Amino acid sequence: MRRYEDLAPSQRCIMTPGPVEVDPRVLRALSMPVLGQFDPEFTGIMNETMGMLRELFATGNRWAYPVDGTSRSGLEAAMISLIRPGDRVLVPIYGRFGHLLHEIAERCGAEVSVMHRPWGTVFDPEEIIAEIRRVRPQLVAMVHGETSTGRMQPLEGIGEVCRELDALLVVDAVATIGGVPVKTDEWKLDVVIGGTQKCLSVPSGMSPLTYNERAEARILARKRVERGIRSDDDAFGEDIVYVRSNYFDLGMLQDYWSEKRLNHHTEMTSMLYGLREGLRLALEEGLEARYARHRLHERALAEGLEAMGLRLYGDPACKLPVVACAEIPEGVDGEAVRSMLLDRFGVEIASSFGPLKGRIWRIGTMGYSCRENNVLRVLGALEAALLRQGFAASPGAAVQAALDVYERV
Amino acid sequence: MRRYEDLAPSQRCIMTPGPVEVDPRVLRALSMPVLGQFDPEFTGIMNETMGMLRELFATGNRWAYPVDGTSRSGLEAAMISLIRPGDRVLVPIYGRFGHLLHEIAERCGAEVSVMHRPWGTVFDPEEIIAEIRRVRPQLVAMVHGETSTGRMQPLEGIGEVCRELDALLVVDAVATIGGVPVKTDEWKLDVVIGGTQKCLSVPSGMSPLTYNERAEARILARKRVERGIRSDDDAFGEDIVYVRSNYFDLGMLQDYWSEKRLNHHTEMTSMLYGLREGLRLALEEGLEARYARHRLHERALAEGLEAMGLRLYGDPACKLPVVACAEIPEGVDGEAVRSMLLDRFGVEIASSFGPLKGRIWRIGTMGYSCRENNVLRVLGALEAALLRQGFAASPGAAVQAALDVYERV
Repeated sequence: MRRYEDLAPSQRCIMTPGPVEVDPRVLRALSMPVLGQFDPEFTGIMNETMGMLRELFATGNRWAYPVDGTSRSGLEAAMISLIRPGDRVLVPIYGRFGHLLHEIAERCGAEVSVMHRPWGTVFDPEEIIAEIRRVRPQLVAMVHGETSTGRMQPLEGIGEVCRELDALLVVDAVATIGGVPVKTDEWKLDVVIGGTQKCLSVPSGMSPLTYNERAEARILARKRVERGIRSDDDAFGEDIVYVRSNYFDLGMLQDYWSEKRLNHHTEMTSMLYGLREGLRLALEEGLEARYARHRLHERALAEGLEAMGLRLYGDPACKLPVVACAEIPEGVDGEAVRSMLLDRFGVEIASSFGPLKGRIWRIGTMGYSCRENNVLRVLGALEAALLRQGFAASPGAAVQAALDVYERV
Repeated sequence: MRRYEDLAPSQRCIMTPGPVEVDPRVLRALSMPVLGQFDPEFTGIMNETMGMLRELFATGNRWAYPVDGTSRSGLEAAMISLIRPGDRVLVPIYGRFGHLLHEIAERCGAEVSVMHRPWGTVFDPEEIIAEIRRVRPQLVAMVHGETSTGRMQPLEGIGEVCRELDALLVVDAVATIGGVPVKTDEWKLDVVIGGTQKCLSVPSGMSPLTYNERAEARILARKRVERGIRSDDDAFGEDIVYVRSNYFDLGMLQDYWSEKRLNHHTEMTSMLYGLREGLRLALEEGLEARYARHRLHERALAEGLEAMGLRLYGDPACKLPVVACAEIPEGVDGEAVRSMLLDRFGVEIASSFGPLKGRIWRIGTMGYSCRENNVLRVLGALEAALLRQGFAASPGAAVQAALDVYERV
């Protein structure tokens, strides 16, 4: 029999747009002994996590809990629970993850309308509003922070029109939650889905979401408790358009997260410990201070990259504050640089997708990875790798520029 | 702002049919620093995990990997990827989790035929075979170990008929994998889905599955790579019946787990560390030795319960070796006993569902929880709680009976 070695992962400096490094306090939480899912200590932890998620999402919504799966599980749970086959869904697309929303909506059986902006830009909210008035969708799904292009879509004003026309506004905030303000109630977002492995710096594996009463009403209209645990209280009309997933049925999930404690699945004990600790860290830091920290390191990184002689990709007016996209210079092999960074320096940065594959590097400043020593380290290492590739970076300039930013604070 | 305390879960003795206690080596693995998802060190861990899963499932199948979600995520992924709307699906039901398979199949749009056996019993495989010949389903889905009733369904012979009639046989081995032999290839099972939080003693959060080429052929016939990363190599026919889920589309998941490393989701880093360590522990112990250990503690627990004066529930011929179901005696408040066990003794046992709610307790002997000191502890605590409730347990007998079993070894 083949022998398997002790697990001994290297300590990396992870400067991608996720997954990023995890705070040691979160790692420690993951290693705590597990509790049974209905142990009052554990249901207490579930309730505390809901409370912290409400603060994170800046909402008074009753429902704020994680879906048990990676980030896209939360997107799919929201969409499959809210979209009835044949519903009109509008998806504004300005990068890869807009395409994903299109894909999911289509698989839910929606009649999908899309609108496109060239990668590297975002929509004027007025364009989206005009399209909502034209299409009259039952649901609008859009990305807040698009890591594939490093852009952030302003959302103000769209929610109001959705309310006026009885559409639900579903927002993918996977990349922004915990790093950039996401004002669920103020912006009138009906459903917001976050991720753990980016600005929250919790390992991949849960997708926290929140939704308001408008969304809940649609969920309850389709509610069907599963066979085997259905009781007389769970009667539903024969003609309901029930959700075409059991795992992602938010009607049952919310009963599991309520005082009813409906036995839907077995909550991910250790991941929930990690999420709770990650949220606690975020709230202890203070959300405003946390957003300011992300802005500071963004500036240091961006100024460093420019001082190195690299061009930043995309429209600066809508830059996603937690990802910097740098164009790969003519004649430089982007993948060779990435490999050298990982193999020699222990530093990871990302490439991109589709039309941007081979054209840009993406460097994240997210969560626990977003700190001064990491920014200085990635700049120094990237400069060295570029010099090695024959690119005429001006030696030392990048780190000096970043230090200037830090000393100005 | 409300302050949240340091996480400090109590150390419990968890003797439920899952989630159960986690080996400290697995907890330690969870706390290792994370790696990026395409870091060669991490993809190496993914490949090792696949290798170990093949051993666990006793299969030569190429595909053996976890779905990222709790156990039922693996069930749903298999079923939604294999069942086309309108397909005939046969589900033999002998407990709650058979109902769940019915539920999932129905939500996948299948035309479901069910067959029932009274709770506490299982099917003669010949009954199932006769029904397969009558119904001619495209897919048969059934539970191997039913924790709701503590029964185990013999599977031998069913796979052959499925091959003869071109049906796929999908088996829920969530409760048995790692504690009882699951012979994927020998029994001609086409798809087997396991869980982590039971006999593998890894926290809830992943659902390892395996499937053979017969299942893969159906998956590939429906394959559609998602928008945003689809390339010219990913062309598919306009008329394919693509999978009505993005998250659970095994066609894309297997590309993610292959050398292609299709960017489908971000693998759950820490959970995968835990799964790898749990598998390593199981293989180091040796699967046969592990199954023998589960049988030994099952016997000690059962003899102890009977010596206490409790009646074991269900047909003993088909008892699930990793769960003992004890009937709650007349006049005893089952929930008061469970609360006392948890609050005073730190020991958790389970109740049951549906027709068995309030009628039986379920005591698991699974994975890391399945050990002598735990069995002795649960017997001693249960006896004390029963005496407290006025039940005439004969004091000391249960623990002595279990010790007798251990000393006979």
